[in-house]
Amino acid sequence: MFEMDKRLVKDTVPLYSSKLCHILLMNDSRYPWLVLVPHCAQVSELFELSAEQQQQLWQETTVLAELLKAVFQADKMNIATLGNVVKQLHMHIVVRMQNDAAWPDPVWGRGKAQPYTEEGLQDIRQRLIAALQKSGLMPNAGQEG
Amino acid sequence: MFEMDKRLVKDTVPLYSSKLCHILLMNDSRYPWLVLVPHCAQVSELFELSAEQQQQLWQETTVLAELLKAVFQADKMNIATLGNVVKQLHMHIVVRMQNDAAWPDPVWGRGKAQPYTEEGLQDIRQRLIAALQKSGLMPNAGQEG
Repeated sequence: MFEMDKRLVKDTVPLYSSKLCHILLMNDSRYPWLVLVPHCAQVSELFELSAEQQQQLWQETTVLAELLKAVFQADKMNIATLGNVVKQLHMHIVVRMQNDAAWPDPVWGRGKAQPYTEEGLQDIRQRLIAALQKSGLMPNAGQEG
Repeated sequence: MFEMDKRLVKDTVPLYSSKLCHILLMNDSRYPWLVLVPHCAQVSELFELSAEQQQQLWQETTVLAELLKAVFQADKMNIATLGNVVKQLHMHIVVRMQNDAAWPDPVWGRGKAQPYTEEGLQDIRQRLIAALQKSGLMPNAGQEG
């Protein structure tokens, strides 16, 4: 049975569930930042997924990266699966701006997360959900949180 | 015409060329670390590749990550495409060990690269090429450097 890593639960807000992944918003208002966690398997490395699951994860990652770049007019998208601290396989998709808190360094381990205000969270969630629905990229997605 | 970013040229040693990518070894002996640079197009983001090229890049990345994990008995593989400094699309595949120089932080921007000695470079190149050839994962790969 799938169980989400406690640290991922603590650091994020659930947005959607796709066929393969829980799609989470990192609760750090410094960067629009999604985390994809495959709920089909308890694995740590990409290559521990089945070939079909791997392909699905790559596809969701790429589609979401392109979507986020457009919605937030990102200067660059950062995509990574690290897992040195949280072992459960998860994929980061981070909107980077040349004036953001860590630019041009990676975002991990730089300063403290700045959680969204309730209003800020509602705003970004609405933007993300509207974009996803309008694009038709995730027609079966259901709002969870 | 494809032209490799000057910083990538400076920081790496060429290993192989696949159908899609130049496969480079980062010249930093602190971590076994490959960098894949698609030579088919001058792009910056994953989603600027064609669907077929995207799929090929994901596949090469995953196969190489699995191979490196086995060859170096990695504690964790780190896979990322960032591009905040070097805009040319490139994919990092990094072997991480719990006793490495940056663990558990990401490797980028932590300390100075420690270039391989000539002997060290020869050793790791031989290990990588032997593994690739034995696995049959890159049957058409040719040794460049």
